Amino acid sequence: MKIAFIGLGNMGTPMATNLVNAGHQVVVFDLVESAIQTLKTAGAQSASSAAEAARGAEVIVSMLPAGAHVKGLYLGQENQPGLLDALDGKPLIIDASTIAPEDARLVAETARERGLSYLDAPVSGGVGGAKAGTLTFIVGGDEAGFEQAKPVLEAMGKNVFHAGESGAGQVAKICNNMLLSILMSGTAEALALGVKNGLDPAVLSEIMKQSSGGNWALNVYNPWPGVMENAPASNDYQGGFLVDLMTKDLGLAWQMALESKAAVPMGSQARNLYVQHAAQGNGRLDFSSIQRFYRAGEE
Amino acid sequence: MKIAFIGLGNMGTPMATNLVNAGHQVVVFDLVESAIQTLKTAGAQSASSAAEAARGAEVIVSMLPAGAHVKGLYLGQENQPGLLDALDGKPLIIDASTIAPEDARLVAETARERGLSYLDAPVSGGVGGAKAGTLTFIVGGDEAGFEQAKPVLEAMGKNVFHAGESGAGQVAKICNNMLLSILMSGTAEALALGVKNGLDPAVLSEIMKQSSGGNWALNVYNPWPGVMENAPASNDYQGGFLVDLMTKDLGLAWQMALESKAAVPMGSQARNLYVQHAAQGNGRLDFSSIQRFYRAGEE
Amino acid sequence: MKIAFIGLGNMGTPMATNLVNAGHQVVVFDLVESAIQTLKTAGAQSASSAAEAARGAEVIVSMLPAGAHVKGLYLGQENQPGLLDALDGKPLIIDASTIAPEDARLVAETARERGLSYLDAPVSGGVGGAKAGTLTFIVGGDEAGFEQAKPVLEAMGKNVFHAGESGAGQVAKICNNMLLSILMSGTAEALALGVKNGLDPAVLSEIMKQSSGGNWALNVYNPWPGVMENAPASNDYQGGFLVDLMTKDLGLAWQMALESKAAVPMGSQARNLYVQHAAQGNGRLDFSSIQRFYRAGEE
Amino acid sequence: MKIAFIGLGNMGTPMATNLVNAGHQVVVFDLVESAIQTLKTAGAQSASSAAEAARGAEVIVSMLPAGAHVKGLYLGQENQPGLLDALDGKPLIIDASTIAPEDARLVAETARERGLSYLDAPVSGGVGGAKAGTLTFIVGGDEAGFEQAKPVLEAMGKNVFHAGESGAGQVAKICNNMLLSILMSGTAEALALGVKNGLDPAVLSEIMKQSSGGNWALNVYNPWPGVMENAPASNDYQGGFLVDLMTKDLGLAWQMALESKAAVPMGSQARNLYVQHAAQGNGRLDFSSIQRFYRAGEE
Repeated sequence: MKIAFIGLGNMGTPMATNLVNAGHQVVVFDLVESAIQTLKTAGAQSASSAAEAARGAEVIVSMLPAGAHVKGLYLGQENQPGLLDALDGKPLIIDASTIAPEDARLVAETARERGLSYLDAPVSGGVGGAKAGTLTFIVGGDEAGFEQAKPVLEAMGKNVFHAGESGAGQVAKICNNMLLSILMSGTAEALALGVKNGLDPAVLSEIMKQSSGGNWALNVYNPWPGVMENAPASNDYQGGFLVDLMTKDLGLAWQMALESKAAVPMGSQARNLYVQHAAQGNGRLDFSSIQRFYRAGEE
Repeated sequence: MKIAFIGLGNMGTPMATNLVNAGHQVVVFDLVESAIQTLKTAGAQSASSAAEAARGAEVIVSMLPAGAHVKGLYLGQENQPGLLDALDGKPLIIDASTIAPEDARLVAETARERGLSYLDAPVSGGVGGAKAGTLTFIVGGDEAGFEQAKPVLEAMGKNVFHAGESGAGQVAKICNNMLLSILMSGTAEALALGVKNGLDPAVLSEIMKQSSGGNWALNVYNPWPGVMENAPASNDYQGGFLVDLMTKDLGLAWQMALESKAAVPMGSQARNLYVQHAAQGNGRLDFSSIQRFYRAGEE
Repeated sequence: MKIAFIGLGNMGTPMATNLVNAGHQVVVFDLVESAIQTLKTAGAQSASSAAEAARGAEVIVSMLPAGAHVKGLYLGQENQPGLLDALDGKPLIIDASTIAPEDARLVAETARERGLSYLDAPVSGGVGGAKAGTLTFIVGGDEAGFEQAKPVLEAMGKNVFHAGESGAGQVAKICNNMLLSILMSGTAEALALGVKNGLDPAVLSEIMKQSSGGNWALNVYNPWPGVMENAPASNDYQGGFLVDLMTKDLGLAWQMALESKAAVPMGSQARNLYVQHAAQGNGRLDFSSIQRFYRAGEE
Repeated sequence: MKIAFIGLGNMGTPMATNLVNAGHQVVVFDLVESAIQTLKTAGAQSASSAAEAARGAEVIVSMLPAGAHVKGLYLGQENQPGLLDALDGKPLIIDASTIAPEDARLVAETARERGLSYLDAPVSGGVGGAKAGTLTFIVGGDEAGFEQAKPVLEAMGKNVFHAGESGAGQVAKICNNMLLSILMSGTAEALALGVKNGLDPAVLSEIMKQSSGGNWALNVYNPWPGVMENAPASNDYQGGFLVDLMTKDLGLAWQMALESKAAVPMGSQARNLYVQHAAQGNGRLDFSSIQRFYRAGEE
């Protein structure tokens, strides 16, 4: 299949590589030249603009940092028209960026007016999942588009969910990550409280994991150093999912709560903890480093 | 084995019954006569006081509502001496009540001074687990006592954990339940936010369960009515683990945080939500009914 | 002075009336015809559009519900050009609406490009202050514009503050109202805690007012019914500053916190309390009714 | 009048000195010999035990760190009988310590059984107020005792409030200090948010002080360095009311909330902020230093 891939950052680069490896004909574009070179080495073709990459494509995949970039790409910005107005065919468009649902809905609606099908398909699984091809895609858009996108997404990921109509992929992703921030800070808080009261963190982790405290953080991502050998916590909180990215996703959760007038006391608490943690210089650490916030003052 | 069982409430009655059914010789005592009758029917012997029940026992098991009752029983109170001073042998003492760790440590220390072994062994699993004999016991005390207690506890439960020294069972139980309150309110919050933004609660539950939002509440105790057939949420939040009991456990978490000068922002948030929810008349509902707090104002 | 006044809602109507009463020549416009009639009766002239009202004006004052309306008015929207492009002179523009600082800065910048001076001048004091002419104006913009605006603002208010450059009026207003929500909910919480522990709310109010707990809510707006005769609390929480409006302002505070990556744990807590309180059907009550949230379950 | 004064810490020393200066015959006791010497120099007599100090006294004043000390003094502890059982007359007892209301009520009740009148009379105003004789006393106990105590208290303070029956002084003091912690952290949060968005902290302080954000912190204790010359903030947060003491009082507020099943979301938030701030090494700074928590990451 001929696929245009736009946005070759830490996530986009391995995702596009997996599409190449799956046998697709991939044409890539990014503003950073070196990123393009990496993909050419991997077997992709390059283009000098998003519009050029999209020429003749059956599918367009984009992976960009924020809503402003996605809107700029598809709807246009000061110095250039939007890609939606520069297409020569009717490719299926899949945006894998994590952005506000209302931004996703705006692009989807504009695409629909031009007879195009646009899916929001944010991912979870991080850089590790992107490299291993084990990402989870959470997709918003119509059923037909979803079925068409599925084989493409399965070349980059393991699980592909259909969350609902346009924007629903973003909503589900943001809800999930808000809950994740609550699980992680709650788990770190429970471990710190137990240790301050004499427990061994590994013993307490094991007990809670097998009891009603069981959750993703305890199962595969324990935040206490040394409890789980392969977790970022045991590697000085390097790698993984950055505090800065969690903070960004919690910002999207707040926006969503504002627009829908939802009370989010647990998510707000987690957001403020993560922002405070980032302000204290930890933005580039893995998000399980919130454990350190709870251990301030230890020798 | 000859076992004295003191405290025949909603939990103690089925627990003592399971000991009878396992072939032990059980002598029971409770202040409520009808509770004693139930156990006699089940095959236990009765006593007219805790001291009488304990006479000649190899093991004493107690299951009482709060720390004041446990201290009253073992250390004595105004009108009666403590059981620790009324024993004719050296039975192993197992207290399965959920109380403050410092209360547990005080009784354990006093027992130790009299050459007695005392374990704190709070349970999780609720009335359902007590009846089915599938409770989880989280035990604090020395290794020898733990090994001696294990077969007795296994007649009443499925999992038996050794959390550490005296008091550690209470610490671990309280940490777990604080985390549980965070998982449940966080899950309810994420579901409410998603639904307000157009998602189907069952679809969102499935996505988060299989993603990094996965946790005990989503796996076996979904708080949204109708998503999980056998959960209390699908039965008008009847039965299960009462809001009032979760509130009590969160009070113990606060006490522990006060004594150890621990910051517990997530647990505090959950505690205040549950207290508010109880104040609005929901204390006798299952604790997953916190979902309703997030749905106020829906038609 | 010839003044155009755009936006005749609950606040705009008495504000424009006070300008008429101060002897200014006021030309008004609103989408609601009946509002225009009220002002004509009071002595104003009417116009059939904002542009017509602004013709020949030395000063334009606008008082609109939200940022979208302010941007629509001055920058234009789908079906009409912005007022900034339809002016025949160089009137001073004063927008008294409470909107996001970035929206205010955008309009100010666009005005500046056209050689116009635009001030953001949100008010506090509510409908009562608007009628009595005792509003507080908090102004953002350059010094020259501020000095020029002062006499006009003093016809509608008692205090006029210069907070800083464009947008600073909005920032200061939003910070103040976030703090106000914290004072009010904190005061209500302290009173409820004291009363639950046996104190008389009037006695406790007096003690705290004269101690380090002293604050605006205790001084002039006591939230406990009966303590302060003229406060909304003593009139079933009717009138005053609505929960819905406080909720709106707390939303602006969240937006500001998101954009500046600020942790706002106290303001977030207050925002979630107010949103919850509104969801329970109290949006149209005075914001001191948060006291009721703390009294749930009382007979 | 003959007055026994027990407890010569940072607060007790200047308080007893003021009683001496007012012409009373003061007999002091403390476990620290050097503290006694200071008072002897000031003109007091010394005693070698609390019981000896109390011999023949018309009034007993105590000023101790915590409830355990107060109960130990009056009700006795392991190695000594309580003072209530060692008195030769019927002195009025005034305890100025800040302790849990239930502890105060227990001592008051025991005193009453012995025909003695006991008042709880916690103070606000800090070491500065103690030295200047401008403390505020918040008194719990019966009317007759209150009237009898008033002239003695007025020798040490400026304001004397009668909050209600036994324990009410503690309840009111704790409510006030919980509210104070909310005012201070809320004010620091609003200032930090304003400054991050371009405002001058002095200008914003002035605006909020004169608007509905006005509160004790803005009026006399501004937390931003340099805004108020004589505030601890302008002296590196030295002196004043220590973070560790505010944390202790917030712990008493939590205890009270637990016992009365009160939701305290704002006070809990403040408590966790202060505990976190203390854990990061700031326990010995003035409590307005919470401003630094909000400024983490600034150059």
